[in-house]
Amino acid sequence: MNVASPQSLKALAKLAEAFPGDFLLTAEGDLERYSRDWSGDHVSRPLAVARPRTAEDVAALVRHCRQERIPLVPQGGLTGLVGAAVAAPGGGELVVSLERMNAVRSVSPIDFAMVVEAGCILEDAKHAAEKHDCVLPITFGAQGSCRIGGNVATNAGGFNVLRYGMTRDLVLGLEVVLADGRIWNGLKVLRKDNRGYDLKQLFIGSEGTLGIVTAASLKLFPKPTQVEVALVGLRSVEDAMLLFARARRECSDLLTAFELILREGIEVALRARPDFTDPMDAPYPVYVLIETSAAGRVDLRALLEGCLAEADDLVADAVMASGKAQADRLWLFRETMVERQGNGRRYLRTDVSVPISRLAELVDQGVAAVRGRYPEALALAYGHVGDGNVHMNVIPPADLSLQQTEDLFHGAEALIFDVVDRLGGSISAEHGIGRVKQKAFVERADPVALDLAMRLKNVLDPGHLLSSGRIFPSLPGASDE
Amino acid sequence: MNVASPQSLKALAKLAEAFPGDFLLTAEGDLERYSRDWSGDHVSRPLAVARPRTAEDVAALVRHCRQERIPLVPQGGLTGLVGAAVAAPGGGELVVSLERMNAVRSVSPIDFAMVVEAGCILEDAKHAAEKHDCVLPITFGAQGSCRIGGNVATNAGGFNVLRYGMTRDLVLGLEVVLADGRIWNGLKVLRKDNRGYDLKQLFIGSEGTLGIVTAASLKLFPKPTQVEVALVGLRSVEDAMLLFARARRECSDLLTAFELILREGIEVALRARPDFTDPMDAPYPVYVLIETSAAGRVDLRALLEGCLAEADDLVADAVMASGKAQADRLWLFRETMVERQGNGRRYLRTDVSVPISRLAELVDQGVAAVRGRYPEALALAYGHVGDGNVHMNVIPPADLSLQQTEDLFHGAEALIFDVVDRLGGSISAEHGIGRVKQKAFVERADPVALDLAMRLKNVLDPGHLLSSGRIFPSLPGASDE
Repeated sequence: MNVASPQSLKALAKLAEAFPGDFLLTAEGDLERYSRDWSGDHVSRPLAVARPRTAEDVAALVRHCRQERIPLVPQGGLTGLVGAAVAAPGGGELVVSLERMNAVRSVSPIDFAMVVEAGCILEDAKHAAEKHDCVLPITFGAQGSCRIGGNVATNAGGFNVLRYGMTRDLVLGLEVVLADGRIWNGLKVLRKDNRGYDLKQLFIGSEGTLGIVTAASLKLFPKPTQVEVALVGLRSVEDAMLLFARARRECSDLLTAFELILREGIEVALRARPDFTDPMDAPYPVYVLIETSAAGRVDLRALLEGCLAEADDLVADAVMASGKAQADRLWLFRETMVERQGNGRRYLRTDVSVPISRLAELVDQGVAAVRGRYPEALALAYGHVGDGNVHMNVIPPADLSLQQTEDLFHGAEALIFDVVDRLGGSISAEHGIGRVKQKAFVERADPVALDLAMRLKNVLDPGHLLSSGRIFPSLPGASDE
Repeated sequence: MNVASPQSLKALAKLAEAFPGDFLLTAEGDLERYSRDWSGDHVSRPLAVARPRTAEDVAALVRHCRQERIPLVPQGGLTGLVGAAVAAPGGGELVVSLERMNAVRSVSPIDFAMVVEAGCILEDAKHAAEKHDCVLPITFGAQGSCRIGGNVATNAGGFNVLRYGMTRDLVLGLEVVLADGRIWNGLKVLRKDNRGYDLKQLFIGSEGTLGIVTAASLKLFPKPTQVEVALVGLRSVEDAMLLFARARRECSDLLTAFELILREGIEVALRARPDFTDPMDAPYPVYVLIETSAAGRVDLRALLEGCLAEADDLVADAVMASGKAQADRLWLFRETMVERQGNGRRYLRTDVSVPISRLAELVDQGVAAVRGRYPEALALAYGHVGDGNVHMNVIPPADLSLQQTEDLFHGAEALIFDVVDRLGGSISAEHGIGRVKQKAFVERADPVALDLAMRLKNVLDPGHLLSSGRIFPSLPGASDE
């Protein structure tokens, strides 16, 4: 246990006195599962874990911690990829797990809205919506583990941003515990409300640094009754992006996903699953997985088929799924590639974006730079290219030492970020900054933007009590108001 | 001329010295058209009118005004309805007209994005997008006069929010001059960017109180190649809302407008235009105007026809336009009603919203309350009910005195706002707060929300230099940092 200082022990004793019963977990064994995130890249023991049941519980806890100068970090499903929700090293941070605030408070198919507590697992919220023939369209691999509060705090993206937007676009209202221990109740389900500043925007995507989200009201959409999926083989990333612009038009914005996969990614899936066969007669350097969906009686199949047939100058080959089983099988290429890319080893993940018109340059130049410098590594690029967002990952060869691996990660990331910077892009499209990208973020940030952001932090959390060291560097004197 | 104080004259002389040439308008006749808004309800002479050509011009002006403690108000097309952009009474405020910053800087159909200066007239921006087969979907009556900066500053709504969202949802990036005279350049066209706080959200909808928007990058969409319009007669507002929920599903979210009109509104149009004939054989208490649109080869007509045919338990009668001319004619009922509702007199406008599931109650109870108390007045309700937003307006009888008219406005507004409050709604769905609704807003605001908003104002504009008295009351000591 890394909590040993007399101050920590005193703080713990006072906490336990103020919050008796099973509110607080302090035993070594109990802390285990709150100390490690999904990726396994971040492991750190907290001071303790608080498990509130209500927003009032959270508020009382924040007031206590403010008084006692105990830094706090809200925690959801621990599926984030930037080390934001695990306690900072040092053992002084109290984790606030929202897992017991997991109710779906209401679903209204007439309002196309639902109200959900922060600790609700995304998939549970999605199922609750589906029972009312609606869809909550936040969709990504971690949906069975991540929690709504974390989705809001990180402005989660995923597969369906193209059609439905980021989490920010889906939030109608929030309930938030502020750093001073007050509760802001902004849990409305209004579609339009121009009464002064839109305060919820402050907290969405702020990664727990400005307040603790305890509940959210979210937009729902009619549940699609039809889905069509195609895998398309192409000669270049540029052709893929030209196809995207046409497909948006031809499919009347009914596209729900447009995912790039390089040939190397297909090969990862083929190697991992000997039962898979190459999806087309010949290999192509680039593939896109296209999904369209509709709720009404649109002839969706004809729409997608027509779009691909007309684009015969771009489409080298295409497979259209003839039903749900085949559609799932096409998606499985992508899922298998993502799950098995590392082949059990640590690998470099990036999550970058550029204007859509520059995406082909980003992939071509980024992959070429990494392969040129590290020919023995595997460079993959895949992602939500309809949003200009791509994950360029680098898998090191098996025989590297720890230091050689670190050097490769730093070197390859610098190569990729250089291309991103040159093309006016973002080093974090959907994962956020957290602790992992904090230095790279601050180095690149426009000074005016950084000053504005710091002012917001200082006015909403003057003691730097909440999620200190995420997004911004930890300040000396943090928690001293 | 209401500028007479020695301080004002001295301030003007210094301004003219610092900004020579045609930058500053000070002559009585020149100020005329910057002194009155579209509604004619707000008339007030400014200290002078500054007409910058660049963001650097705006920044230099702000720095000068900060030094000299001259309050500023940015001004666009003067089509707002809450008195925000006309100078505050007293003649001490300098109007910053963005009209000379009206360039369309770029349109990219591959990025589905454009970059436009704040002074660009919305319709000019829309035309520029259309040349590239794209649509900028901010759409409302004032689009020929309003300017992009005002659309952003007020988070403008309109007819197509249902499909494309409010202006907030369409902004990819902003360039803003801050109250301290620095320029924040956030003019990116990235679809996804989770690098720290989303600063643009602060300025969207802040009504000029936190910064001066000088340019915006905006999302575009494929230009629809098909539009279908129907006018539907119904027995009740409740039936209209039930039809909405079904139409969203059946038309696969291809609805672009769902507008409520009461029978009294159709009669306003019929009285105003003797060449119009009643749109259906029999009158109905409630009508909805439905518009769907698509870019691809969807059979849009069959979709809308099928939806209405299946809803025969709700639809009393329906007219589907058989071409653009007929569609325009159906829309003309709505436009004529809006333009001619006052019959030349001043009337009470409201712009309220509730959860969609409460909209029927809002209209039924609001109209009944007004008609019960003021049987001689004409109470209308119309608007974007698919967003839960309705304009409930009250036209006084012709023979009232000025005082009686004011009394009726106050009394009727209180009746309507009471219903809104009871149903958990907003007293400003899309028009904003400005000076007109400032008192009603502050009275109703949650103290925590109001405190948060005031803190944002104080940290971003500590001297209350920008648009003082909008949203919040003017503070004593404003402009004294």
